[in-house]
Amino acid sequence: MYQHIRDVQEQQASRLVSRYIKHYESKTKRSKQLFGHASSIIPSGTSHNIRYFEPYPFFARMASGKYIYDVDGNAYTDYWMGHWSLILGHSPKVVVDVLRDRAVEGTIFGTVNEHALRLAELIRKLMPRAEMLRFASTGSEATMYAVRLARAYTGKRMVAKIEGGWHGFNTDLMHSVNYPFHEPEGKGILEEELRYVVALPFNDIHGSISILDGVKDDLACIIVEPLLGGAGCIPADRDYLYALQEHARKSSALFILDEIVTGFRLSLHGAQHIYSLEPDLFTLGKIAGGGLPIGIVCGLKDIMSLADVRGKSKGDRVSIGGGTYSENPLSISAGLAVLDHLARNPYIYSRLEVLGDEVRRGIDKVMSEHGVRVKSTGMGSLFLTHFLSDGVEDVKSARDVAICNIEMQRLYHFALLSMYDIFFLPSKLGAISTEHDSIDIRRLVDASERIAGDIAYLNVI
Amino acid sequence: MYQHIRDVQEQQASRLVSRYIKHYESKTKRSKQLFGHASSIIPSGTSHNIRYFEPYPFFARMASGKYIYDVDGNAYTDYWMGHWSLILGHSPKVVVDVLRDRAVEGTIFGTVNEHALRLAELIRKLMPRAEMLRFASTGSEATMYAVRLARAYTGKRMVAKIEGGWHGFNTDLMHSVNYPFHEPEGKGILEEELRYVVALPFNDIHGSISILDGVKDDLACIIVEPLLGGAGCIPADRDYLYALQEHARKSSALFILDEIVTGFRLSLHGAQHIYSLEPDLFTLGKIAGGGLPIGIVCGLKDIMSLADVRGKSKGDRVSIGGGTYSENPLSISAGLAVLDHLARNPYIYSRLEVLGDEVRRGIDKVMSEHGVRVKSTGMGSLFLTHFLSDGVEDVKSARDVAICNIEMQRLYHFALLSMYDIFFLPSKLGAISTEHDSIDIRRLVDASERIAGDIAYLNVI
Repeated sequence: MYQHIRDVQEQQASRLVSRYIKHYESKTKRSKQLFGHASSIIPSGTSHNIRYFEPYPFFARMASGKYIYDVDGNAYTDYWMGHWSLILGHSPKVVVDVLRDRAVEGTIFGTVNEHALRLAELIRKLMPRAEMLRFASTGSEATMYAVRLARAYTGKRMVAKIEGGWHGFNTDLMHSVNYPFHEPEGKGILEEELRYVVALPFNDIHGSISILDGVKDDLACIIVEPLLGGAGCIPADRDYLYALQEHARKSSALFILDEIVTGFRLSLHGAQHIYSLEPDLFTLGKIAGGGLPIGIVCGLKDIMSLADVRGKSKGDRVSIGGGTYSENPLSISAGLAVLDHLARNPYIYSRLEVLGDEVRRGIDKVMSEHGVRVKSTGMGSLFLTHFLSDGVEDVKSARDVAICNIEMQRLYHFALLSMYDIFFLPSKLGAISTEHDSIDIRRLVDASERIAGDIAYLNVI
Repeated sequence: MYQHIRDVQEQQASRLVSRYIKHYESKTKRSKQLFGHASSIIPSGTSHNIRYFEPYPFFARMASGKYIYDVDGNAYTDYWMGHWSLILGHSPKVVVDVLRDRAVEGTIFGTVNEHALRLAELIRKLMPRAEMLRFASTGSEATMYAVRLARAYTGKRMVAKIEGGWHGFNTDLMHSVNYPFHEPEGKGILEEELRYVVALPFNDIHGSISILDGVKDDLACIIVEPLLGGAGCIPADRDYLYALQEHARKSSALFILDEIVTGFRLSLHGAQHIYSLEPDLFTLGKIAGGGLPIGIVCGLKDIMSLADVRGKSKGDRVSIGGGTYSENPLSISAGLAVLDHLARNPYIYSRLEVLGDEVRRGIDKVMSEHGVRVKSTGMGSLFLTHFLSDGVEDVKSARDVAICNIEMQRLYHFALLSMYDIFFLPSKLGAISTEHDSIDIRRLVDASERIAGDIAYLNVI
């Protein structure tokens, strides 16, 4: 493991990696045992590929506030925050209270209910481009439905997405997710299924427009995360998003903003508000479900109403979900509880932003003092520290991320977990919640400084 | 509405339909108002197309045991049971207790946990063909992953599904769901995306094998529900399933059983146990999540382990989820609570079966006494009454269902709802839970008898 680092600076690196791993193994004995067992029944030992890291992920026992606790009794300060779904920390009182009340009143009605209508109204109020919306149960479903709606509305086929853009495991968008972007995302997906998907280089207006121009007559939509999430926590340049939106307008294609990560995270009104964008469709998830399963496809009435099946024959409708668990009262009520809380406490965002700026600046400063060249990217409460390769000055796209030292990034996150009880999913962005405070940020920066001391000589390669 | 019935026997039918609707409207005033509002923000006024029915669906307020309560204060005996997810009724004590305990311990860890491992082990114990499994959050995701695994494992492309077979809203299987089966399932799905999907006539061995023979060199899998669910609640003939399984074996394709509806519903060990089948892959959902969102893809180790990403380059792996909410402790714990309860009380299934037989026999008898030709199909606790057209003697496939009098079926279910406070989603199968008893069945049969009296003269058309 961490082979590349080992090869280069074999002895010192190997000693360091061994020290981190040994320490982790010594405090996570029960997790090691359980993971061995889990691997024999769940491929990769876990149900989401990115949850696996070397030598093995710890087994969570419970989580509360900013902490996640493992089966060996360790308490970690959690910046993974349930795939960034938790802006109020784990099991905030507003969610626990509503779940305890609602659990006895039915977990699934399988029909419409007032809670769902209330959440729909609240979202429309906060994000006026959500003239209409449909609840699904996962983000993956929401983006799939957005693409289907776009193709139906435009009568065109091409979908333009971003290199490194992640919109879930749906077949429709399993394209150019991981580097090298031109290679297929693994077996079992047919070439034909992705024949009408093209990938754009993030934050590269010229490169993107030139690709879009080549397909514009058949372009159904452009789908983009305003902050490239899984691929590196990189905010889009304002001009870049405007250029994409403008191109979509000109080519009678739809502009789709995937706000599953950023919605209610960067602001109560989404990244679309911060960037003054006017998406035709957008998707929500994560925070919108208050930590329970949800996905939402939202957009303009003209487009969304294609999904209304009433009085339409099979060929005339656009068949999207829903799904069995859509509008379920637990996810909906948890989402409502969190959004209500955020709406009543709008200062939360400025406070999170201050903490985010502190952490980005703080980590970059202590690393640089040790001669470790890093760049912490992000926005608001989202952040990720990249280890820069020679000649790379900034991180603006998934291609930049791919030439950063990702093994060093993983080692850094693993060191935080092993030596300092601070949890990031190795190489993935962190999220600050309202449960974190300046002392946590200080602790994270201090830990980063000590790790910088450990790795400084390894990074100069 | 109910136009066909009206056209034929205009005056009497119209009077009857008006009476049912008027009664429904008089007791669901608040629902009517809310639905009008919902329609302006949610396409079809609800997030799942089948939840819409004429004149409008009621708005659920809460649900408990066998009852679902609407916002106007009506209490309905519920046979819809949350898309048939609830075998212990709404919010059974075992689920409420565990949710109340767990809510405070974290709703999403975003990492592996012991609850998930326990559920995986329990499923493997109950269904030994689940040598390995992956948790997802919806059935739609589970079937999508099953198809992806099958194509990866076999290196072949064709997917054979059943006419009327429903495997969720994923693009991969949105083919031949609704009659007429050869027409596309609506706009926004590309021809190319479904080029490698073929549809088989249910329970027709000769017809199915002849289609399969035509594609066998490129056949990746056959996916089939052992009881055709959404398309009519029709059990497969044993010989039919054997023939499909056998054909899959012979053509080196995978045999996939979609047990999302039937798993833990027909028996603790699934329909695969009842039919003595040996699927290569199978999918679970519904009951497995105890009324919370879940989907599970299960199967043989050789196939499932393709999804293990450890040490594999991008091109060599099969990239399936998970997803953000996979392994979430609420869905997993609710599922465990229900399955534990079922495992400790195996008599439940024979009791449900007795009630199922009672209801199928009872309804058919009282209808036939009024000269209304029906056939109640189903198995165990699942049932659906079909109104036979002239010349049709039995209901063995989705094609048979399509030539039955579906408007009469909808009217019958609507009459149960309007006049007798008994809830079926019009034209969809019903599910009996452990909360229902012989008195409920008697009430349902009695109500059916009275409706038979109402509609007898309409049916003779």
